Amino acid sequence: MRVAIVGLGLIGGSLGLALRRRRLAQVIGVSRRPATLRQAKRLGAIDSGTALLREAVAGADLVVLAAPVDAIETLGRHAARFMRSGSVLTDVGSSKAQIVQALGRSMPRGVAFAGAHPLAGSERRGIEAARADLFDGSICVITPTRRTPRRAREAVTRLWKPLVRRVVTMDPARHDRLLAAVSHVPHVLAFSLMRATPREALAIAPRSFLDATRVAQSDPDLWDDILLSNRAAITAAMSRFEREWRALRRAITGRDQRRLVRLLAEAQRERQTLANHGA
Amino acid sequence: MRVAIVGLGLIGGSLGLALRRRRLAQVIGVSRRPATLRQAKRLGAIDSGTALLREAVAGADLVVLAAPVDAIETLGRHAARFMRSGSVLTDVGSSKAQIVQALGRSMPRGVAFAGAHPLAGSERRGIEAARADLFDGSICVITPTRRTPRRAREAVTRLWKPLVRRVVTMDPARHDRLLAAVSHVPHVLAFSLMRATPREALAIAPRSFLDATRVAQSDPDLWDDILLSNRAAITAAMSRFEREWRALRRAITGRDQRRLVRLLAEAQRERQTLANHGA
Repeated sequence: MRVAIVGLGLIGGSLGLALRRRRLAQVIGVSRRPATLRQAKRLGAIDSGTALLREAVAGADLVVLAAPVDAIETLGRHAARFMRSGSVLTDVGSSKAQIVQALGRSMPRGVAFAGAHPLAGSERRGIEAARADLFDGSICVITPTRRTPRRAREAVTRLWKPLVRRVVTMDPARHDRLLAAVSHVPHVLAFSLMRATPREALAIAPRSFLDATRVAQSDPDLWDDILLSNRAAITAAMSRFEREWRALRRAITGRDQRRLVRLLAEAQRERQTLANHGA
Repeated sequence: MRVAIVGLGLIGGSLGLALRRRRLAQVIGVSRRPATLRQAKRLGAIDSGTALLREAVAGADLVVLAAPVDAIETLGRHAARFMRSGSVLTDVGSSKAQIVQALGRSMPRGVAFAGAHPLAGSERRGIEAARADLFDGSICVITPTRRTPRRAREAVTRLWKPLVRRVVTMDPARHDRLLAAVSHVPHVLAFSLMRATPREALAIAPRSFLDATRVAQSDPDLWDDILLSNRAAITAAMSRFEREWRALRRAITGRDQRRLVRLLAEAQRERQTLANHGA
């Protein structure tokens, strides 16, 4: 199988490493930066590299768009024009409805698109941060719609299945709703908490603070687009958070110990259930 | 040195282990539960144990109250009545102003009190979770006031200095303000986020969510008292958080990309500074 990876950052680079280490595919990398191509080659993330999208995708069975969310749509339309008949296009974007709608409708005859989102990452970015084991133990969400050709869904599932713990399939809207809750809002929390904390307090920050703010190190130029492209689901999840936050606040200011213990205990129980399931 | 530790949970047990491993003190443990005393002895957290507070503290140079915040005041008044002249009383409570004010004013002649708070812990609790290295690399805050006898401050500093990375001294009000920001509010966030997250989303929770909610596993019966005893500082820190959260929310709903990138970038810079300082 020939796979073209468009964008050799943390995700694209790690995908190349993971595929090549398992000898699952011949990998062609696309990057505009010669230094990135050289480093990807040196690390073993690609078999060959080019700055020319057309050249890379023309011979590929599968093309993976591993670019920031706001670049995926344009890159995808462009790539599809040069892809051969029978090939499949996919992406790794963190929000899906917008991308899937745009690309699903604009494929030329013979080219099929299915969206995907591997739930792995790091606050680090770039090919320097790429790791062959980045996806180990993680989940990949595939987001077909009713219009997605079956062969596209199957090809994308086959791509990710050997690399992750579990492949989950759901429609793009559901993906965006769930990811808003478990990933996008935690990022908004981390950024907000970091901004709200006086410098003098940072000197004594314990592990609870470091864990709660770790993802505030994430790249603003990636995250502005993720947050904006999924803003409806995110603001809905933010409102749910605000309701719970206000309930806790009321119990604290009202010195309502019984209610406070109950609110904390319910949260504790849910979190422990999650921990017991190996998370 | 003879140290009596009143309460053999995670903190009391770990303190005993850390002191005994370094041969810094002879440790007498106090617990009402015979099983806890037996286990503390077996683990090597205490030299001897008793259920009788009076017996344990009568011969001690230093008495450490390692009980939940709401029990410390009563236990401290009681213990002080049986302590010998020249001895020192301290505690490990997570909020300080209330405890320090109450105990600082009620010591009998010859007994001196100084408050302390080792910034270490775990979402686990009990003697089962005790570890000799729990305090390694952490900070201990000592919270004397102008009324605190110098010998109490010095004895408590001497107790913690060999066990932690750094001993920091500040007044109780400042401790409570800073801890509200870097520990108590992160706990409220974790509890709130856990409550706000639909179960169907938990099945795909990535590391950002697990990190953000880890401390929601903390014991509700410890945390209700921490939150209530420090509620003024906590609600002030919650209000600061809300301002930043609303600013981010406005940038998202208003699709104000420039402002959003700026808000995220400022948070990222602060968090990276913290990471670069080895945190």
